[in-house]
Amino acid sequence: MTSTQARTASLRPREDPDIPARLAVSADTLHGTHLPTEQFSVWMKEREAAHAFEVVPIPFDQLNGWSFHPQTGNLGHVSGKFFTVEGLRVRQPKQVWHQPIINQAEVGILGILVKEFDGVLHFLMQAKMEPGNPNLLQLSPTVQATRSNYMRVHQGSSVRYLEYFAGAERGRVVADVLQSEHGAWFYRKRNRNMVVEVTGDVPLHDDFCWLTLGQINELMARDNVVNMDARTVLACLPQVPSSSSKDGFRSALALSRDQDAGALHTTAEVLSWFSWQRSETELDIQRIALYDLPGWYRTDTEIAREDGRFFKVVAADVRADSREVKGWSQPLFQPHGLGIAAFVAREYCGVLHLLVHARVEGGFADAVELGPTVQCVPWNYRSSDSPPFLDQVLAAGSSRIRYEAIHSEEGGRFLEAESRYLIVEADHTVPDDPPDGYAWVTVGQLADLLRHGQYVNVQARTLIACLNSLR
Amino acid sequence: MTSTQARTASLRPREDPDIPARLAVSADTLHGTHLPTEQFSVWMKEREAAHAFEVVPIPFDQLNGWSFHPQTGNLGHVSGKFFTVEGLRVRQPKQVWHQPIINQAEVGILGILVKEFDGVLHFLMQAKMEPGNPNLLQLSPTVQATRSNYMRVHQGSSVRYLEYFAGAERGRVVADVLQSEHGAWFYRKRNRNMVVEVTGDVPLHDDFCWLTLGQINELMARDNVVNMDARTVLACLPQVPSSSSKDGFRSALALSRDQDAGALHTTAEVLSWFSWQRSETELDIQRIALYDLPGWYRTDTEIAREDGRFFKVVAADVRADSREVKGWSQPLFQPHGLGIAAFVAREYCGVLHLLVHARVEGGFADAVELGPTVQCVPWNYRSSDSPPFLDQVLAAGSSRIRYEAIHSEEGGRFLEAESRYLIVEADHTVPDDPPDGYAWVTVGQLADLLRHGQYVNVQARTLIACLNSLR
Repeated sequence: MTSTQARTASLRPREDPDIPARLAVSADTLHGTHLPTEQFSVWMKEREAAHAFEVVPIPFDQLNGWSFHPQTGNLGHVSGKFFTVEGLRVRQPKQVWHQPIINQAEVGILGILVKEFDGVLHFLMQAKMEPGNPNLLQLSPTVQATRSNYMRVHQGSSVRYLEYFAGAERGRVVADVLQSEHGAWFYRKRNRNMVVEVTGDVPLHDDFCWLTLGQINELMARDNVVNMDARTVLACLPQVPSSSSKDGFRSALALSRDQDAGALHTTAEVLSWFSWQRSETELDIQRIALYDLPGWYRTDTEIAREDGRFFKVVAADVRADSREVKGWSQPLFQPHGLGIAAFVAREYCGVLHLLVHARVEGGFADAVELGPTVQCVPWNYRSSDSPPFLDQVLAAGSSRIRYEAIHSEEGGRFLEAESRYLIVEADHTVPDDPPDGYAWVTVGQLADLLRHGQYVNVQARTLIACLNSLR
Repeated sequence: MTSTQARTASLRPREDPDIPARLAVSADTLHGTHLPTEQFSVWMKEREAAHAFEVVPIPFDQLNGWSFHPQTGNLGHVSGKFFTVEGLRVRQPKQVWHQPIINQAEVGILGILVKEFDGVLHFLMQAKMEPGNPNLLQLSPTVQATRSNYMRVHQGSSVRYLEYFAGAERGRVVADVLQSEHGAWFYRKRNRNMVVEVTGDVPLHDDFCWLTLGQINELMARDNVVNMDARTVLACLPQVPSSSSKDGFRSALALSRDQDAGALHTTAEVLSWFSWQRSETELDIQRIALYDLPGWYRTDTEIAREDGRFFKVVAADVRADSREVKGWSQPLFQPHGLGIAAFVAREYCGVLHLLVHARVEGGFADAVELGPTVQCVPWNYRSSDSPPFLDQVLAAGSSRIRYEAIHSEEGGRFLEAESRYLIVEADHTVPDDPPDGYAWVTVGQLADLLRHGQYVNVQARTLIACLNSLR
């Protein structure tokens, strides 16, 4: 925290009154001062050409520096760094399941730097290669750094722009919250989601560009452009007011962000419902040895379930085509099929409400977080009962789909993990009185929870970023 | 959550606009309609006479139903219920410590029922015996129930008033948040802290009384009257506005509650500092066998540290003196000496700020929570360096002490665990620019965090309840 400058220091408003309005100006500015949106694809192609990589599947024994531990079968790096693939057993009163899980204890920073140009806030975004992305290069936050990087900041870090987030001279904080990542694949992984504003000169390095929020919002409509790390940070921005009257849906969305517009349930009731969901969840979670996973098998090239469902662990070699840049190899988690993450939405008295689901995921640090109405890979349920509301989402015609794009999950750990992200208006088959574990809340209520960690899961955060892109 | 009553349902304000003002009326009402404060002690003595108990130290082998596990040495009950005493190893980069810890996995409910009488909110409080309290009987919430009780609610619970908190007919939620308990002695224990308002008739059972917030606030000034469970629930009430001009301190306190009055740091900065503290804390916490605790020994009557510091585990027999009520026996944790929990406070530009400390406690579910400026048992530091600010607090003259009372910690688990709770105005030796791990925040900023779990520890919550009692 910055110095209080002795007792003569003047006080400041607890909430910065200008930030929402300044973000609104940025969101309404579709022509940035640095890179026109129509040249964005060309710029990305140039960055791609500068760092051409190839990702090739390999057997586990060709992983460089990685090996299975002789006793536990856990897959780890010789340095003890990066992450390990271990086993997890999740016991609930009516079921037990086992799965591999990624254990990456370090808290990282996902940070976006913002700065005013010509009176408009611009966001410093990076073209970043991640081996699991189907198109390799996507738009990422200014900084994606692990704590090891973070700690080196005083000895001169190799991570560009890190000093604005972790150093003594860092900028003004707009948002900074420890958020979870995929609870199905990560064991208690969290990252600091940060947005920081600076006023001084900022050098512009290759692979980086300044974009307005309006430009980023346009890119959010495209498939596989804005990466997961960028989406989760964008979701943590303060809500940006709008007075849209483009259509009934957008008007209801604008009111849903407005804290004075009311809601079906008071925030005290929403918090109470959440406390109830969390306190009712009986979970016994145990990290176990990877070799000891009932229902899973290991071959030279994969660790997978005997019934073929959910995901497999594979290995890949990341090869650079120039001599300047080194390649590496690593394990990756690969889901089976395209995922769906959808919020079902409905207007009540002119205010849009989202149907959130209190989800249990084995890797959550605290058992339950709020997820989308539907979050699954439909392929896994081809011969069993569908999760609630999946059929309604899949059956939705285009007139009810208010947002749709395919986005990739964390490309540094997951291979071709793509999901169709949807905002779907509810039809009459979706009840006003939802089943246990589901609740109607406004976008503003979710946004208030997003100031704190462990309330809103990463898929729901992507959907909030998608909703925020609609004005 | 209550039914949405179809799409015709009207919306409600997200925040109930009336509750703070109605709480203020209750806080300003010093004469309740049911039990005058001057008769409170008489009433408590009557309740004490109705349930006279005696607590007698016994050796472990006289515990009824409790035994040390032959392999682990863990102390547990034959039923598998209640709690176990296990070992804990806490590793930090520069130190390792070992200690016994209470493992009580169940989430309980601590709930206070409120209801209007003659237009004034009254709180239903219970005279409850807990074996560890020095005076046995203290004032507790309406309900202190474990989840096992909670689940039985539909089959007719034996816990009085539980249906108002957990049943389908429960009242209107004023507050409901999962809060931690003592991280030094409990492994990840949490309880739902609830305040619920009802309007219908409520039967008044023996051992219960209706008090206004003003009456409770007066009782908060007395030693060992309001128990820990009541104090933590009271701390979770919405902040009650006041426009006190009794003295400069109370004026500054009133402004400290006012969200429009400003603060040294924006809430975004406070949250960022907290994220930083939590993400920087490297902790490796492992539950281990109780027999295997380096530096601890076990005799027939106690498990204690070889150097005599901190606390010991003992056993007690709780004997009823009437044939109607059964006694029981149980282990208890007994600290060595009177604790101190103090907020150092200072006015900046007319607004009171508290110096909070980001504390690491081994039993916290999430490594760090905000605690008082000073929280320790001074006796433990008689031959070593004092914790920061302890000397300043101990040296404070009466002119700087704005609140002082002795309160007991959880009497159901801790034996004679008393602490002096203090609000002390800072003198010149307390820096405006605090050391790492400390920050100046307003009471309102802490209160906002109290709507969410795992931000503010139980000792700091008691101090917030103490501050709230000053008007």
